[in-house]
Amino acid sequence: MIKVSVVGATGYTGQELVWILSKHPEVRITGLCSRVEKPIAYSEMFPKFKGAVDDLCVNFDIDEVCAKSDIIFLSLPHTVSTAFVPQLLAKNKKIIDLSADYRLDKTDYEKWYKFEHKDQSGLEKAVYGLPELNLEKIKKAQLIANPGCYPTSVLLALLPVLEQKVITGTIIADAKSGVSGAGRKADLALSYCEVNESFKAYKINEHQHMPEIEKIIKSVTDIDINMNFVPHLLPINRGIFSTVYVTLTKDLSQDEIITLYKDYYSGKPFVRIYPNGKYPQIKDVVNTNFCDIGLKVKGNILTIVSAIDNLVKGAAGQAVQNMNIIYGFDQKKGLI
Amino acid sequence: MIKVSVVGATGYTGQELVWILSKHPEVRITGLCSRVEKPIAYSEMFPKFKGAVDDLCVNFDIDEVCAKSDIIFLSLPHTVSTAFVPQLLAKNKKIIDLSADYRLDKTDYEKWYKFEHKDQSGLEKAVYGLPELNLEKIKKAQLIANPGCYPTSVLLALLPVLEQKVITGTIIADAKSGVSGAGRKADLALSYCEVNESFKAYKINEHQHMPEIEKIIKSVTDIDINMNFVPHLLPINRGIFSTVYVTLTKDLSQDEIITLYKDYYSGKPFVRIYPNGKYPQIKDVVNTNFCDIGLKVKGNILTIVSAIDNLVKGAAGQAVQNMNIIYGFDQKKGLI
Amino acid sequence: MIKVSVVGATGYTGQELVWILSKHPEVRITGLCSRVEKPIAYSEMFPKFKGAVDDLCVNFDIDEVCAKSDIIFLSLPHTVSTAFVPQLLAKNKKIIDLSADYRLDKTDYEKWYKFEHKDQSGLEKAVYGLPELNLEKIKKAQLIANPGCYPTSVLLALLPVLEQKVITGTIIADAKSGVSGAGRKADLALSYCEVNESFKAYKINEHQHMPEIEKIIKSVTDIDINMNFVPHLLPINRGIFSTVYVTLTKDLSQDEIITLYKDYYSGKPFVRIYPNGKYPQIKDVVNTNFCDIGLKVKGNILTIVSAIDNLVKGAAGQAVQNMNIIYGFDQKKGLI
Amino acid sequence: MIKVSVVGATGYTGQELVWILSKHPEVRITGLCSRVEKPIAYSEMFPKFKGAVDDLCVNFDIDEVCAKSDIIFLSLPHTVSTAFVPQLLAKNKKIIDLSADYRLDKTDYEKWYKFEHKDQSGLEKAVYGLPELNLEKIKKAQLIANPGCYPTSVLLALLPVLEQKVITGTIIADAKSGVSGAGRKADLALSYCEVNESFKAYKINEHQHMPEIEKIIKSVTDIDINMNFVPHLLPINRGIFSTVYVTLTKDLSQDEIITLYKDYYSGKPFVRIYPNGKYPQIKDVVNTNFCDIGLKVKGNILTIVSAIDNLVKGAAGQAVQNMNIIYGFDQKKGLI
Repeated sequence: MIKVSVVGATGYTGQELVWILSKHPEVRITGLCSRVEKPIAYSEMFPKFKGAVDDLCVNFDIDEVCAKSDIIFLSLPHTVSTAFVPQLLAKNKKIIDLSADYRLDKTDYEKWYKFEHKDQSGLEKAVYGLPELNLEKIKKAQLIANPGCYPTSVLLALLPVLEQKVITGTIIADAKSGVSGAGRKADLALSYCEVNESFKAYKINEHQHMPEIEKIIKSVTDIDINMNFVPHLLPINRGIFSTVYVTLTKDLSQDEIITLYKDYYSGKPFVRIYPNGKYPQIKDVVNTNFCDIGLKVKGNILTIVSAIDNLVKGAAGQAVQNMNIIYGFDQKKGLI
Repeated sequence: MIKVSVVGATGYTGQELVWILSKHPEVRITGLCSRVEKPIAYSEMFPKFKGAVDDLCVNFDIDEVCAKSDIIFLSLPHTVSTAFVPQLLAKNKKIIDLSADYRLDKTDYEKWYKFEHKDQSGLEKAVYGLPELNLEKIKKAQLIANPGCYPTSVLLALLPVLEQKVITGTIIADAKSGVSGAGRKADLALSYCEVNESFKAYKINEHQHMPEIEKIIKSVTDIDINMNFVPHLLPINRGIFSTVYVTLTKDLSQDEIITLYKDYYSGKPFVRIYPNGKYPQIKDVVNTNFCDIGLKVKGNILTIVSAIDNLVKGAAGQAVQNMNIIYGFDQKKGLI
Repeated sequence: MIKVSVVGATGYTGQELVWILSKHPEVRITGLCSRVEKPIAYSEMFPKFKGAVDDLCVNFDIDEVCAKSDIIFLSLPHTVSTAFVPQLLAKNKKIIDLSADYRLDKTDYEKWYKFEHKDQSGLEKAVYGLPELNLEKIKKAQLIANPGCYPTSVLLALLPVLEQKVITGTIIADAKSGVSGAGRKADLALSYCEVNESFKAYKINEHQHMPEIEKIIKSVTDIDINMNFVPHLLPINRGIFSTVYVTLTKDLSQDEIITLYKDYYSGKPFVRIYPNGKYPQIKDVVNTNFCDIGLKVKGNILTIVSAIDNLVKGAAGQAVQNMNIIYGFDQKKGLI
Repeated sequence: MIKVSVVGATGYTGQELVWILSKHPEVRITGLCSRVEKPIAYSEMFPKFKGAVDDLCVNFDIDEVCAKSDIIFLSLPHTVSTAFVPQLLAKNKKIIDLSADYRLDKTDYEKWYKFEHKDQSGLEKAVYGLPELNLEKIKKAQLIANPGCYPTSVLLALLPVLEQKVITGTIIADAKSGVSGAGRKADLALSYCEVNESFKAYKINEHQHMPEIEKIIKSVTDIDINMNFVPHLLPINRGIFSTVYVTLTKDLSQDEIITLYKDYYSGKPFVRIYPNGKYPQIKDVVNTNFCDIGLKVKGNILTIVSAIDNLVKGAAGQAVQNMNIIYGFDQKKGLI
C-alpha cells in the first residue's frame, strides 16, 4: 500500500481525487489538506463521503505531510504549487501537480498566468503527464505536471495526425466544457440561473490552455501550427466535448483514418476509437477515465470529436493513472 | 401613460419587472436605478434588453426619481425599503414594495428579519398586494406590500378552504422553488454544480415566508392553524410548485371541492382551476402571471397543488397586476 | 386585422407560432388545425394557453381554412406541405411554409429528403424568407419558404463576409442546438435521461440543413465554398449557438470586422452586433426574435458566434416577421 | 466467484446492475439477456461499457441461463417475471426480481397491476428485500422481491417511528423522483422538453407503489394508517427525495428523535442519519447505495426527509446488497 496525501482536497477535482483514491486497492490515504479553521472530518464537509472517507481534513503542514506520504497530489489554485514543489522535491517525495504551474515554460507561464515563476529547476524536472504521449518519461518522473482538461481532450484528438504529419497548419478546436471545469467557488457567472438553459463561447483564442496545447503540439511535430481554440460553457456538471477540425495533406479515406487512430491508441487502455458513423457522447464517459473519439472525413477536412470527463481523464483520473504508471501498477488499477 | 421607476432594477425580479413594464401599453419607464459606478445603459448590463430598453441605469436619487415618476417599484434587498418608503409616502408617490419590509407586523418582522423596523406608520398604511384576496383595498392603496413568492403560491392554494372554514388545524405546505427565488448573487450554494442534478429541503419550518403565510391565514379565518412549511430547492430557473395537505372537516367530494375553488376564483383572471384528474405543471405557468391549481381528495385529506412562476405571479407580474388595479386598468393589461 | 390560420398547431413550432400570433395586435387567429380525434379546445391540449387561446383545434379542411383566412402558416412535417401548397396558391392565399419543402431546388430536395417533389411551380414561386437577405422579394411574395433554424443561425453569421467577398473556400460551422429543434415526439434518443447531462455531435456533414445553407451561399457569392457543417445536441430546451470559422483573404482588424457587420445589419432590427470582446449567450436571445453576433479575429481566421432562439428567429418568430413584411407592418410588430 | 446472469439488461436499472456487478470482486457475469435481433456485444449497445463489459447480450433462454448461473437478476417489465420465476425456482436457482411481481399479495397485485397473478407459490416464497427490515429472512431466501424505489425511500424514512409506535394514523409522503425512475422508453411525456425546466405531481394517491408501502407498514405495526402518497417528477436523471410528515403521539425532542433513528439504523451500513439542523441532498447519494435521512420536529409534526439514488439503493444497488446477504458477503462488498 502506498501512502498518499491530497493537498487541496475540497475543490471539485480534489473531491474526485479523494473519491477515486479511497477505492484504489493499492492506496492508503494518509493526508487530506485544505484551508480549514480547525481539523474537521472530510465527510462532515462532504456528506457524500460519510462511511467512506471519514478522515480529518487539516491545514497543509509540509513536514507533516512529507512524514506520512510517499506521493503527494497537489490540487491547488494556479501559482500556489510553485511555493511547495521545491521543498517536496528536496525531500524526495513524488508529486503529481494538478495545477498549470509546471506545464508551460517560464516565459509562457508568466505571460498567461501573470505570475513570476521562480522554480526553474522544477520546470525542468517536470514531466507532462499525458500517458498516451509520455509513458516512458512518466515511469521515471518525480514531478508530474498533470495536463489541463481542455488540452487532454484536444491533444488526444490530435496526436495521431500530428505524429503522422498528415495535416497542415490551421487547427480549429471548438471545445465545450461542463461547469465543474471552472472550479468550486462563489461566482455570479457560474450561478445556476446564469448557466442553466444557456450556452456561450468565452475567452476566444485567449484561454490559458491554448499555449499548453501549442507547446505539446510543438514538442511532437515540426509542422507550423496556427491554433484556434474556442472554449464554450456547457450547462452540465461534468464533461468536455471537443470538435477539432484539421486539413489533411494526404488523401485518406474514412477507414484509413480510423485505422490510423486505432493503431496509434493500440495498447493505450483509456482511449476508445469509434467505428465508422458512430460518435461519442459525453454521457458515455462521465465518471470514467476514458477518452472516446469519433472521426469523419469530408474532402480534405477531417472532423475529430473527443469526449472526456473533465474531472476524471481531464484531472483526477489521469493523475491516478500517472500514479499507477510511476508505481508500476496496471494503468487501469482503481480506474475501471 | 403613467410614469414608472424601478429601484433595484438589476436583480432577477428587477429585470423581470423592467421586461414586463417595457411592453405595458400604459406605461412609460422613466427611471431605472441600481448601485452602479456610473450611469450605464441598461441594455449594456443585460444584452437581452438591447433594442427594447436602452435607457440609462443610474444610482438611486430619491428626489430625481420622485420628480419623474407617478409610481415607484422598490425591488430592493430586505430592510432597505424602510429607509425610503417614509419619504416617498410624504411626497405622495404610489409605491409597490417587492421586499418583505411591509408584509409583517413590527414584532414578527423584527423576529424573522433581525432588523428594527422604524416605519410603524408605513406598516399601517401598507396593503398586502394579493389581488385575489384584497382587491378593494388595493384599489385605494398608496403603499403595496407585494407578497412573497412562496406565500402567493401557498395562500392561493388555501384561500377557498380557509374562507369556507372546511379544514382543521394542521396544514402541511411542501413547496418547491426554482433557483431564481434566491436572488441574483455570487453564492457557492447557488452555483451550478451544487444545484444541478440535485434537490434538497432547507430551512424546514424556519423560513421567513412562514410568518407571512400565517399572518394572512389569521386575517381570513379564526381557525387555529398549525402551519408546517417545508421549502425545497428545485434545479430549474423559474417556478414554484406547492403541494399543500389539509384535513377536511366536512365530507366533500372531488367535484364539490373543484366547484368550491372555481366559485371562489370566478372573476379572478389569474387563477386557473384544473378539472378532475388533471394537475398543473410548472412549464404551463412559466413566463405567465397565472397560478394553476389542481385538487385531489382522499378520505379527509385534501391535496392541493399550485404552480406559479416565482418571478411573475410570485413577484414582478403580481406587482404590475397591483399597479393595474390601482390605476383602474384591466388587471390583465400588459400581462397576457 | 388580418385573419390567420395555423396548420400544424401542436408541435413546438406550432405552439410558439400560436403564442406569438395570439399577442399580435394586427392578427385574429381564425383557424387552428392539427390531427385530432374530434375538435378540442387548444387550451385543453396545452393548459398554458388557457384564458389566452381557447379556440377549437380541428382537423385540417383546406376549403374551410381558405374561407376564413387571409394567410396560412403551415407548420407541418417535411413532405406534407407539398400536398397542400398548390391548392392554397390557386385560391390566392398567402402562405408561410415552415417546413423544408420549398427551400431547396427539386434535385437537392429529393436527394436530402428522399421524397419526390411534384410542385415545381411552387418551388419557383417560393421566396426564401430570410428578411435580412430578401426583404424586397418577401414584400411581394405569395409563398414564403421560412428558413430552417440552423441555416438562419449560420447564414446570419456569414452574410456580411460573403457579400463583401473577404473569405476563401472552407467554412466550418460548428452548431449547437437545443432539443426542441428536433420536434415534439416520442423518441428514445430525445428522452430526458438520454439528453440531460450529455452532449453529442450528430449527422456530421450529413445534416439536411447543409444543402440549404450551401444553396443560399451560392445565391449570394460566386466564391467556391467548401462547407463543413457539424450539428450538436445541447441539453437545453431552446436556442442555437453557432461558432463559424472562416479564412479571411484580406487583412481586417477586429474593429474593421465589427464595423463591416454593423454596416451590413444597419436598419435590420433583429440582428445585434456585439462590441469588441463581448460575445452573446443563448439566454440573451431566448424568447426573442433576435440574432446576436460576436466576432473575433486571430491571424487570418475569423471566428463568428451567433445565437438565436430556434423556435423564434429560427422558426415561428421569423415567420411572423415575414408576415409583417408582406402586410407592410413594422417588422417588429408583435415581436418586441 | 459466483456466476450471475442479468435478464433485462438494457433498461436503466439493468445497465446499473451490470455496471455494479462488473466491478464486484466476488462476481462473474455469465449472462446478459434482453430482446435483441441477434447476439450483440453489450458494449456495442452501450459504448460506456466498452473495455469493461464486452460480453454478448443475447435473447433470454431459460435453460441456458440456468446452466451457467448461480443467481439470476430479473430486471423485466412488470408482469413478465411471473412467467419465468416458477421454472427458475424449480431449478433451484436463486432469484432477485426487481419488478413489482412478487411484492404484493395476489389481490392487491391484480388490482393495481391489472394482471392475473398465477404464481401463488412464488408469492409465498418471496422475501421482501429491504435489508434494513428483513435481514434474517433475506439470508435464507431463494426468491427476493426487490423493493420499489419510492417504497425504499418512504419506508426507510418511517421504519423507526413505526416500530416504536410513536405516530398516529395519517402519513403524508411527498416524494420526488428523477426521470430514470420511469424507465428507458420512447414516451412523449418523458421527452426532454416536456420534463426539463418543469415539475409536476402525478398519480396523486393512485400510484402503484402506494399499496406496497401500505403492505409493509401493516407488516410492522398494527397502527391504523391512512397513507397519502404524492409522487412528483423531478427534472434530474437520478434520485428520489421524500419528505414524509407524521403526527407524533409522544412528546419527543429533536435530539430524542435523532437518537431513535440512529439506534434503529445502528449496524445498518447504508442508512446515514444527519445531525440536528442538517438535511440530505440528492447529490450526496447519487451513484451510491446510501439512504440519507434528516429530521425536524415542530409541535407534534415530525418531518422526515430521505434521499436515495433510485437506480442504486432504489433498485440495482439494493439488489446487489441482497445478493451479498444471501451469499454471506459483507453487505457493502462491491457497493462502497
